[in-house]
Amino acid sequence: MPPPSKTDDTGIEALIELMARLPGLGPRSARRAVLVLLKKRGQLMAPLAQALAKVALTAKDCRVCGNISTSEVCAICADPARAIGEICVVEDVADLWAMERGQVFRGRYHVLGGTLSALDAIGPDELGIPRLVARVAEDGISEVILALNATVDGQTTAHYIADALAGTGAQITTLAQGVPIGGELDYLDDGTIGAALRARRRI
Amino acid sequence: MPPPSKTDDTGIEALIELMARLPGLGPRSARRAVLVLLKKRGQLMAPLAQALAKVALTAKDCRVCGNISTSEVCAICADPARAIGEICVVEDVADLWAMERGQVFRGRYHVLGGTLSALDAIGPDELGIPRLVARVAEDGISEVILALNATVDGQTTAHYIADALAGTGAQITTLAQGVPIGGELDYLDDGTIGAALRARRRI
Repeated sequence: MPPPSKTDDTGIEALIELMARLPGLGPRSARRAVLVLLKKRGQLMAPLAQALAKVALTAKDCRVCGNISTSEVCAICADPARAIGEICVVEDVADLWAMERGQVFRGRYHVLGGTLSALDAIGPDELGIPRLVARVAEDGISEVILALNATVDGQTTAHYIADALAGTGAQITTLAQGVPIGGELDYLDDGTIGAALRARRRI
Repeated sequence: MPPPSKTDDTGIEALIELMARLPGLGPRSARRAVLVLLKKRGQLMAPLAQALAKVALTAKDCRVCGNISTSEVCAICADPARAIGEICVVEDVADLWAMERGQVFRGRYHVLGGTLSALDAIGPDELGIPRLVARVAEDGISEVILALNATVDGQTTAHYIADALAGTGAQITTLAQGVPIGGELDYLDDGTIGAALRARRRI
């Protein structure tokens, strides 16, 4: 339900349509968001327009790992303090951010930008897997950590990458599966409990 | 949970904070929305920035009724085909849009921009009620339709406006209450059923 055509010339309708394409916002909530923006034109709408324009203009994909960056090579790839020998493979920039929040991994990344999907015609080339294999071979990478989501697509992609890297001599590892910190057994699915039991360790 | 500080210089963190201030989006869903925007920099992010900047620059409040417009006087107030003698009082521009979608009302509007609220220090002056009273008296308005929300705040404000307009000679009316079109009695609250019964009419 768009606003009446009388307000078309303000571009409000076009704005609502664009906002409705964001995840988590439908046509109705996009209209509500636009009304809030209209009420706060100075404090919120203008700064948001500027912030979007700035990011749209400056953000680019890192040539090496696929992370979002302002430069050709991202800050992580350019950081001499990060271990060169370890590459962590993640599906998405969001996963890279999640790994960085963990503050444990001190190596570098490879962002796939998705998972293998025959339905969506996403093959190894779209995910930069040949580029990853070349990088592992050329840079003498000692360990590749596959930090893909524990979903069917994620695990299928992980197996494909493990196969592709088999000849490079790098050690291929994956994140441990088990009980999350703070997790209650009662609320965990059987698969997780089984995986945690199989991977049990001495304390 | 912001992205790591390494990406600060791209303005992504500032963008996420601004997005999180929209209704319906929290810090987490704002980050998700920004990641989608980052993936669609050309098709979505840049057009959205332009649409926001355009609306922020051109939209202003109509001097007469408070509607959002590109000109000093909005298209509805400037339309000679709309009845001058009828004013529909609404809380918000969203309510004006809802009324216009109904395509029944052919008069003009007065947008309050909220309801009376002692807690939030919103009095009659903030809602432009003295301006409404002057407009009703000066323009010889014959009917003022109070189309406020059927909430406590809305009804309090409606009663205040009805009192304020008592001396102007204009007829004060309010929207009918009853069963919504397509509504099922079983799902309606008792208050609505009672109101619909009291206002029953011959068919």
